[in-house]
Amino acid sequence: MEGMELASFQIIAAVGGARSSVMEALKDAREGNYEAASAKLEEANQFLAEAHKGHTGLIQKEAQGEQVPFSLLFMHAEDQLMTTITLRDIAMEMIEMYKKIG
Amino acid sequence: MEGMELASFQIIAAVGGARSSVMEALKDAREGNYEAASAKLEEANQFLAEAHKGHTGLIQKEAQGEQVPFSLLFMHAEDQLMTTITLRDIAMEMIEMYKKIG
Amino acid sequence: MEGMELASFQIIAAVGGARSSVMEALKDAREGNYEAASAKLEEANQFLAEAHKGHTGLIQKEAQGEQVPFSLLFMHAEDQLMTTITLRDIAMEMIEMYKKIG
Repeated sequence: MEGMELASFQIIAAVGGARSSVMEALKDAREGNYEAASAKLEEANQFLAEAHKGHTGLIQKEAQGEQVPFSLLFMHAEDQLMTTITLRDIAMEMIEMYKKIG
Repeated sequence: MEGMELASFQIIAAVGGARSSVMEALKDAREGNYEAASAKLEEANQFLAEAHKGHTGLIQKEAQGEQVPFSLLFMHAEDQLMTTITLRDIAMEMIEMYKKIG
Repeated sequence: MEGMELASFQIIAAVGGARSSVMEALKDAREGNYEAASAKLEEANQFLAEAHKGHTGLIQKEAQGEQVPFSLLFMHAEDQLMTTITLRDIAMEMIEMYKKIG
């Protein structure tokens, strides 16, 4: 497996973990378990930090003038990463909402 | 119109339908019409399933070693697909919230 | 800096502004300041309109038959734009929710 394919799969795997953790955090908050929700969010952040490494590495390569080839799989990995970061941000606000609703 | 352009437009059209259905589902839930909201979500899922076909076909092509060329339009179609899947996931949680708020 | 790199940075900067404004709008709504929230959303929309220009210009170029080269940075800019538009749409619904919760 070449470098870019590997990086893509690493991102997709880490982001998948993050996404699951965020969804579980929302479920916890919905059931009033705010501490569990907070722990799940922390877990999601760790997954996202891991996923972000592959992303940053390649962006830097291109910035240094290296031509990074197009890969559909990597594009998909990036889409997963960016939508999951957004999902995490929204989930944080939704958990605040659940606290208000009680 | 070549294959990739056609696939892109098919994805964009189906995703546009999905996005409208999700927004209508949220409006229904906001007004307390939870059955209508549920039907609209189902509609959105059907649109997304359709959009997903074009996506999966191309990912598989690349996985089999075929070089899929870069297309801005296809990148845009994929962005629409992934953000709308995320929007659908969040809308499902928001509808649960509306049920709690009443 | 070549054209595409410049367009990418312009999109990323404008989208960053939009994202901050949306998050502030949510904070305002959470604290019951609905007028401030509305003003922040308007601000976000102006940032997004600006970001959208670079996006549309390049999509049109490709539609006219010009080959737009792949750039990781531009892909990232597009991801930021599309996720932030989605974030804005969801935030609008969340602000309606905060009004209901009071």
